Amino acid sequence: MNRREFSRLVVGVSAFPSAEARVSNSVTIPDMTRLARKIRPGVFESGKHNDLTDIDGVRVGHATLVEGDSIRTGVTAILPHRENIYQRKVPGAVYVGNAFGKLAGSTQVNELGNIEAPIILTNTLSVGAGVAGGVKYVLAQPGNEKTISVNVLVGETNDGILNDIRAMRVTPEDVLTAIADADAEPVKQGCVGAGTGTICFGWKGGMGSASRVLPPRYGGWSVGALVQTNYGGLLMMNGFHVGEALGAKLYPADGSCMIVVATDAPLEHRSLYRLAKRSVFGLARTGSAYSNGSGEFSIAFTTFKGNRVAHGANGPADVKVLSNDSMSPLFQAVLEVVEEAVYSSLLHATTTTGNGNTILALPIDRLWAVLANISHA
Amino acid sequence: MNRREFSRLVVGVSAFPSAEARVSNSVTIPDMTRLARKIRPGVFESGKHNDLTDIDGVRVGHATLVEGDSIRTGVTAILPHRENIYQRKVPGAVYVGNAFGKLAGSTQVNELGNIEAPIILTNTLSVGAGVAGGVKYVLAQPGNEKTISVNVLVGETNDGILNDIRAMRVTPEDVLTAIADADAEPVKQGCVGAGTGTICFGWKGGMGSASRVLPPRYGGWSVGALVQTNYGGLLMMNGFHVGEALGAKLYPADGSCMIVVATDAPLEHRSLYRLAKRSVFGLARTGSAYSNGSGEFSIAFTTFKGNRVAHGANGPADVKVLSNDSMSPLFQAVLEVVEEAVYSSLLHATTTTGNGNTILALPIDRLWAVLANISHA
Amino acid sequence: MNRREFSRLVVGVSAFPSAEARVSNSVTIPDMTRLARKIRPGVFESGKHNDLTDIDGVRVGHATLVEGDSIRTGVTAILPHRENIYQRKVPGAVYVGNAFGKLAGSTQVNELGNIEAPIILTNTLSVGAGVAGGVKYVLAQPGNEKTISVNVLVGETNDGILNDIRAMRVTPEDVLTAIADADAEPVKQGCVGAGTGTICFGWKGGMGSASRVLPPRYGGWSVGALVQTNYGGLLMMNGFHVGEALGAKLYPADGSCMIVVATDAPLEHRSLYRLAKRSVFGLARTGSAYSNGSGEFSIAFTTFKGNRVAHGANGPADVKVLSNDSMSPLFQAVLEVVEEAVYSSLLHATTTTGNGNTILALPIDRLWAVLANISHA
Amino acid sequence: MNRREFSRLVVGVSAFPSAEARVSNSVTIPDMTRLARKIRPGVFESGKHNDLTDIDGVRVGHATLVEGDSIRTGVTAILPHRENIYQRKVPGAVYVGNAFGKLAGSTQVNELGNIEAPIILTNTLSVGAGVAGGVKYVLAQPGNEKTISVNVLVGETNDGILNDIRAMRVTPEDVLTAIADADAEPVKQGCVGAGTGTICFGWKGGMGSASRVLPPRYGGWSVGALVQTNYGGLLMMNGFHVGEALGAKLYPADGSCMIVVATDAPLEHRSLYRLAKRSVFGLARTGSAYSNGSGEFSIAFTTFKGNRVAHGANGPADVKVLSNDSMSPLFQAVLEVVEEAVYSSLLHATTTTGNGNTILALPIDRLWAVLANISHA
Repeated sequence: MNRREFSRLVVGVSAFPSAEARVSNSVTIPDMTRLARKIRPGVFESGKHNDLTDIDGVRVGHATLVEGDSIRTGVTAILPHRENIYQRKVPGAVYVGNAFGKLAGSTQVNELGNIEAPIILTNTLSVGAGVAGGVKYVLAQPGNEKTISVNVLVGETNDGILNDIRAMRVTPEDVLTAIADADAEPVKQGCVGAGTGTICFGWKGGMGSASRVLPPRYGGWSVGALVQTNYGGLLMMNGFHVGEALGAKLYPADGSCMIVVATDAPLEHRSLYRLAKRSVFGLARTGSAYSNGSGEFSIAFTTFKGNRVAHGANGPADVKVLSNDSMSPLFQAVLEVVEEAVYSSLLHATTTTGNGNTILALPIDRLWAVLANISHA
Repeated sequence: MNRREFSRLVVGVSAFPSAEARVSNSVTIPDMTRLARKIRPGVFESGKHNDLTDIDGVRVGHATLVEGDSIRTGVTAILPHRENIYQRKVPGAVYVGNAFGKLAGSTQVNELGNIEAPIILTNTLSVGAGVAGGVKYVLAQPGNEKTISVNVLVGETNDGILNDIRAMRVTPEDVLTAIADADAEPVKQGCVGAGTGTICFGWKGGMGSASRVLPPRYGGWSVGALVQTNYGGLLMMNGFHVGEALGAKLYPADGSCMIVVATDAPLEHRSLYRLAKRSVFGLARTGSAYSNGSGEFSIAFTTFKGNRVAHGANGPADVKVLSNDSMSPLFQAVLEVVEEAVYSSLLHATTTTGNGNTILALPIDRLWAVLANISHA
Repeated sequence: MNRREFSRLVVGVSAFPSAEARVSNSVTIPDMTRLARKIRPGVFESGKHNDLTDIDGVRVGHATLVEGDSIRTGVTAILPHRENIYQRKVPGAVYVGNAFGKLAGSTQVNELGNIEAPIILTNTLSVGAGVAGGVKYVLAQPGNEKTISVNVLVGETNDGILNDIRAMRVTPEDVLTAIADADAEPVKQGCVGAGTGTICFGWKGGMGSASRVLPPRYGGWSVGALVQTNYGGLLMMNGFHVGEALGAKLYPADGSCMIVVATDAPLEHRSLYRLAKRSVFGLARTGSAYSNGSGEFSIAFTTFKGNRVAHGANGPADVKVLSNDSMSPLFQAVLEVVEEAVYSSLLHATTTTGNGNTILALPIDRLWAVLANISHA
Repeated sequence: MNRREFSRLVVGVSAFPSAEARVSNSVTIPDMTRLARKIRPGVFESGKHNDLTDIDGVRVGHATLVEGDSIRTGVTAILPHRENIYQRKVPGAVYVGNAFGKLAGSTQVNELGNIEAPIILTNTLSVGAGVAGGVKYVLAQPGNEKTISVNVLVGETNDGILNDIRAMRVTPEDVLTAIADADAEPVKQGCVGAGTGTICFGWKGGMGSASRVLPPRYGGWSVGALVQTNYGGLLMMNGFHVGEALGAKLYPADGSCMIVVATDAPLEHRSLYRLAKRSVFGLARTGSAYSNGSGEFSIAFTTFKGNRVAHGANGPADVKVLSNDSMSPLFQAVLEVVEEAVYSSLLHATTTTGNGNTILALPIDRLWAVLANISHA
């Protein structure tokens, strides 16, 4: 299987001011391109933007809360499609990798097999606000005037070092703001939304995203991941022992990583669960220590229109389900996207001071120095 | 094995104004006593109050919200012990019987094996408020000044017929009120707290509770259950086909039942999970149809002091764990308490009008007429 | 909802010599008819034979091993359809109620969502022989000449009181015999096949079966159950406290109950799992104590032709899936069939001596005396 | 955290004729030492033999079946301690990574929390023989004369390319042979026992093992893994893209990996389950594609004597349980041992012909050529 041209990650990296600004200091754009190629994992091609919105119809929005010296937090919302999600639910699944985490809404998704509201990511102590905001949004949607029950998935990681998390600053209204911000434009990454105050492998983490498109012989389906990186271990980038080279320490390695996976493949809950599982496995390749305090959850859904679940549907529905044997390329793709999404979160994040602490961005110049002259094989 | 004297349920029934008031109309206290005996399930004796607070240290509190024509809802809080729960966590487990429900916090409990905050019950659309309130409580407890992560278990059932649930009336402050109300007095049952607006088998449901004490040869451990009854099927009471006799219908049978189980037996997470499982199984004896829309969750914890988990504990701890072979009497006890707690919720609940609907209390006089002259065997 | 005519169970009871012989002593056929009506649970009508073979295409066979003084065991095989099962897999699921049991094959069924071999039931120490026999059968089927991997579901209960289980008498060839015996005739119940040596509520247990057909307004689907009863508690029959009346004791209550559920409804794995779950819940109505040592497992599959999985299938398949909202009547039906199947196992079983022990059949005359003059409501 | 001296893997590699023989051709021992250092993952030190038997009391045995042209299979047995395992059960857990696999016995282990028989690994179609052999062993042990129920864990991978797996050659007696062969000597690795006919990343796989010892500040506990490697993907060794460099292909990537993890840390079932989970995660670092057909299962147990479960134990037992917070170093260690165990299986395996097919050993000389002059950072 041939390797791709590797240009996509670079597009992603250079598309945002934060990454560009960081690059401009000491690493040239051509260097960045080579760096991006070097750490690009896997064998499949990326989608157009190399992010979650490459999956048709998926929208991502952020509410970034940076206030005074102490508030560095936010909300990120993922909308599976442009219609009323409650009335047109999407098949979904939640895999619990390590449940030192407060994700809400998982049990109904795994019982009923679908997702019926925007997916919300925020900080650990704001899950309540996340749920309340998500409920408010659904109740207010035209067509939901009689809705009296709705399940909202809310994930979180703990930004309590850079953010005064005890202030419980996030409100249900911030959730509505993030939802309203959602569009199909390239995903804003790094220190935005739910990634505003997170830390990853000792450097500033944040939101990251990547995508893959399977070759036609494997069905041509797309898979994308969005990650909220806040965990630890010893950073590896596409196999390179970057963390060790940059002097990072293994412990403390707590934190968490929230993963949202989207695909346009015609899957049912069971297959989405299997896909979500692999996304957590893929974190191993980044050097995750999967420590006790690191909550790893993955939410997967499909945008395949024929499998949407009409609210209140009765009787049998016709759906398409990919065979088990056809899942393997999707599994490989999700391993690739989650790995690359983590790197992307680190490359987009910028040095952040808040709550009395400063967390440095991954030093791209030193990273480049480390990687410039070495190879894998 | 001899049957017990059956006096305890009667004490429970007559101990509260609502039940007394209903009794005074047409059924005499001696009749109520006989009725209570007739529907009392199982073989083990009850604890002192025949409710959850019989488990040493457990406290239960309510915030009952009855406002205008449309608000009939509330919050119930269960506190496993009198100390700082976050600093002295209790071994716990959550069993998901049917997850058409929005219970928050289950995944961490099952991963880490413990509960670190008051357990909150409320209505479906107020889980967010429940989480936020629980978090606020924990953050404000003396000794938790540095706490930046806490997992709150919030269960719910849907009171949207008697309550204007879309108003999202419950606030985090109501949660604090329910927690502040918690005491070790006999549990207030029926239309209180999270049971204010619930419906069970077509009649008014609510909060119910019961307990059992194992004989010394089985360890002498206590088991109690608290239920928030909001589900359907065809009501059976201790095997009597009461629902059918009173003209009830099988469908629609949706709703939910939240169960909280407490014991003083020295258990670990795994055994508590098995105990919680049986509590959901026990609903079958009440005639539950376990329908698609009925969320059945059970939360179990132990108050056994030697097994508490100190926050931030490092290294090995000495704990006591009951052998698998010793679990069977506890399993039988939990089947009994959950069944009786459901009946108790129905016997304590009173006719309720709200949100434009009226739901009648289970007609005790007709029930008595049905049961007076029949027997099982 | 009207109650059915109740004639079916009676037909079932009187259709087999063992039950007839027992009846002829002291209970008349009209009495049996009334007894059967009295203990018939639920609200839905039964299928033609009131057993698992009412589900179109399902076949059941037994190998009954009664040898000398000590061998009282056997094998029961369930075939989902008449074609090559490996090449045309059926959607299936396994719910683990209590896993003090050695059921083999469950993990693959729940991962891949289908069953690809006959389901085998036998005794606890013969699971190995069950797997080996099932594998041999599949390898030898025309069309499977290149098969090098097959997953066989083998369930068991422990007949070690009436059977010299340590002799490991069951061979792979006995499994082939049970499979060869499989037909769509009314299921032989009581002391046959895997039920030859089992004990239930202190009386002789065995194989039992029942079925229900949903009314057209609920889709008209059929649900059947086959049980291998070997567990304890205090027997209730349709709510009547029969066990207590007949002097039974609660403990020891160990044992196990294997359940096989079939339906013709168009379900996927997830919904079959939910169905299997309710079948275990339904045991509560029979008085199960769900004790530590009682392994409760349920295997559910659908015979719906459109959802069969061709071996080696690639790409997307068109399937029909019943909506979540349409599952409730199936859930009610499975509660009914598992309850009735247990009673049927007891009514068909006959007093058995083996391995130095004698276990009496449920005394139908005394049962009749107990039930003749009482009612529920 | 300092890196270790890296000498242990080399000792392991050179300790066995197969590896020595392969080395002698074209790679010198000093080169092998450097190669071993280069691909040694992680930060913790290895135990004495760098294998599973470093965990005190654990024994491993093999029955290797190489017969004629077509039989290339076998059995590997793992014994947790030297006493009667049934009478002195060990806390254990089974994590199901991907259940395209026929592992038997997992459900009881996860319900009751312990392992009561030798763990058996073999080929896919011999699980029945594995169970039967394990049962026979337990029944025959002195002290088990009255045993009528025993749960045997049997894992498998599919060696159907190099082995005529349809011949079902493995017998229960072969299982007894493997158990009898078990000793605490350094684990024989490569093409032995259950690894005789397996394939990994397109090269000859087999049995592999590794161990780690935590520094005293993390408790000083030991963790070891034994793997039966039969899966695919694109091989990475400690981050180096070896598979790609050696011209390997991603697909077909099916197969399986069975993992057995042992530790002497005082754990309970829940923590062992978490440990087992990480061992499956760790396969990602080797380049596993976690494809549909690759069954990944991990069995973990502790040898900690104070936590053993006496058969028939009644009442509460005193046990030690490591706190959740103390688990992180064990999680890191298990990631390291499973990764290294896979490499060790490849380095020990030798080119094998059977069943009409030849699978080459990983070409150590070419591997050395690839790795000699490159580095990570």
